[in-house]
Amino acid sequence: MRTGPEPNAIVAALPAVTPFVGPEALERQMGAPFHLRLGANESLFGPSPRALAAMQSAAVGGYLYNDPEGFDLRSEIARVEEVSLENVCLGAGIDDLLLLTCRAFLQPGRVAVTSLGGYPTFNYAVAGCGGSIYSVAYRSDAVDVEGLAEAAQRTGATLVYLANPDNPSGSFASRSSVEGLRSELPAGCLLILDEAYADFVPRSERPVFDPEDPQVVRMRTFSKAHGMAGLRVGYALGPSSLMGLYEKIRLHFAVNIVAQAGALASLRDPEHVARVVGQMPSIRDFLSAECRKLGLSTLPSFTNFVNVDLGSPERSLRLLQELQRRGVFVRRPFAEPLNRCIRVTLAPIPTMQAFILELEAALGALGS
Amino acid sequence: MRTGPEPNAIVAALPAVTPFVGPEALERQMGAPFHLRLGANESLFGPSPRALAAMQSAAVGGYLYNDPEGFDLRSEIARVEEVSLENVCLGAGIDDLLLLTCRAFLQPGRVAVTSLGGYPTFNYAVAGCGGSIYSVAYRSDAVDVEGLAEAAQRTGATLVYLANPDNPSGSFASRSSVEGLRSELPAGCLLILDEAYADFVPRSERPVFDPEDPQVVRMRTFSKAHGMAGLRVGYALGPSSLMGLYEKIRLHFAVNIVAQAGALASLRDPEHVARVVGQMPSIRDFLSAECRKLGLSTLPSFTNFVNVDLGSPERSLRLLQELQRRGVFVRRPFAEPLNRCIRVTLAPIPTMQAFILELEAALGALGS
Repeated sequence: MRTGPEPNAIVAALPAVTPFVGPEALERQMGAPFHLRLGANESLFGPSPRALAAMQSAAVGGYLYNDPEGFDLRSEIARVEEVSLENVCLGAGIDDLLLLTCRAFLQPGRVAVTSLGGYPTFNYAVAGCGGSIYSVAYRSDAVDVEGLAEAAQRTGATLVYLANPDNPSGSFASRSSVEGLRSELPAGCLLILDEAYADFVPRSERPVFDPEDPQVVRMRTFSKAHGMAGLRVGYALGPSSLMGLYEKIRLHFAVNIVAQAGALASLRDPEHVARVVGQMPSIRDFLSAECRKLGLSTLPSFTNFVNVDLGSPERSLRLLQELQRRGVFVRRPFAEPLNRCIRVTLAPIPTMQAFILELEAALGALGS
Repeated sequence: MRTGPEPNAIVAALPAVTPFVGPEALERQMGAPFHLRLGANESLFGPSPRALAAMQSAAVGGYLYNDPEGFDLRSEIARVEEVSLENVCLGAGIDDLLLLTCRAFLQPGRVAVTSLGGYPTFNYAVAGCGGSIYSVAYRSDAVDVEGLAEAAQRTGATLVYLANPDNPSGSFASRSSVEGLRSELPAGCLLILDEAYADFVPRSERPVFDPEDPQVVRMRTFSKAHGMAGLRVGYALGPSSLMGLYEKIRLHFAVNIVAQAGALASLRDPEHVARVVGQMPSIRDFLSAECRKLGLSTLPSFTNFVNVDLGSPERSLRLLQELQRRGVFVRRPFAEPLNRCIRVTLAPIPTMQAFILELEAALGALGS
């Protein structure tokens, strides 16, 4: 039997890694389901009831192809974001849009700058397109925005990735800080602003950019505040020239008919997102206060998750494993200095109470 | 204002083309909806009722991420296809899997062989990954399978694409013919067997390959007989080494939670697909007989669509435009010799009767 083709030079050099091991895979390994799923920053408040109704209705018509232009959804996004239709591109989540951006710009010899310990799927996309990653360490448990600018200049980077608010740190770079980063970008460098968690920050505090700015693309998702993680809808906001470039290489049918309908209905029900976002401060305070009773501090957060500080990477790893053994799914940030923490999704209070009971028991099992 | 980055060398060379203009875009251009949608070979019989129920139920849980491994669906596919889990990769339709294959293997200087006038999205993926297309003309209104083998040898092709049954011709290459093509592939060449329409052909007539054959990957979809085009689910069947390669570059969350649930339920209701497929011969015969009464012949078809022969490209184009003006969406194959035809999806008899009335009126408007 003859052999198949060799992969191309870029793919041949890739290691066998998966950006994320999902909780389902962990459950299969353990042979038991998680009873608390607080590790993926999903919205346990669910989607808007109107979005759910729209999705169930759209499924009936799912024997027809989805609109590859996503015209209705893009029109609504353009209205809400106050940009033109030509400034909007849909994707199957921000993952899809990150890959698209890497496919458009990277090749061997080009550099992407990001935070050390930031979103692994971005690094996966960079590697998959032959680019090189340059990582900037966190500073004071937050993204080092000035460090990103400095690294971009020093490396002649093609892409700079900033999640704002950031995952996994939960930190938020101020409007002036991000606008400052943009102004310090070298020519020929694009800032990817991953705003997956931006819904949790007041609009007035977010950076402002001309939608036709050739050096900025913003990415948003329906996975977090909109409560539609499993549906896979995100969008990019950026200059029409960039959207035109995406158009040449994107998978046109990537956002399915149910996802398009749900996202559209969710945008038309802003009260739902406002209700979810509005509950975050009190839940965050509740979790922090309960942790304090257990002798643990928490990091500031501008998102729907909180990092609980265990003091050392060894202790946070042991706690992660003990919680997992008890059927509780949380995550531990990969890189220093945040790997001393466990990252916990903020959920309705009864779920948080259940988590605190498990945390207390797990800490007891660990000893002091 | 500084400029953004230049695209990489491959993307910089791409023309601004869209592989398909969807019917929704045509409707927006016309300012009126189509009342008969017979141009995309969707299943107007709809999905399995069990699949629909599963999708509506899955939407409720869509605030959680989908399983990136698609374990349950892949397990069911492996069972039905009698292969191992390691021989199955999910994708957001065959489009996703074609792009993945091109991303894995192509680079400037590598060649993909396909039929002239075949699936434009394959050509789009080849171009988007820097490969070159070598096209083989249809012969006697069918794919020239021997011509593909000859072209693969002559060009030292990396990929050979064969849709079987073929779209847009509707032709079917016999088991021995496809197995012959495989045996004549040069070393280092992969046969992509696009079996989107294979459900319409008895299993016993389809080619048989060792799932670990390093030179064959088969692609299947839920868009046609399963009636789930808008959901975007397809899968590749191939050697575990190839599936491992896909794993290094694929978008892991591409098949959303509703789509996974629907596809799984549809596989567990094979009677639905059997009922749909079982109706094709009588509908095909009905359409052919009605066309004959109008003085038109039809091409043989092994799919859920039929080409109606207008005798010349000029006449088929005029008919296409006249039908479109009347609110009827059909397609006209792009390339000779099939561009003398219009391609019509087979639908339930009442819909076919409505189409025949429109066809008769459109022919009348054209004159003879």
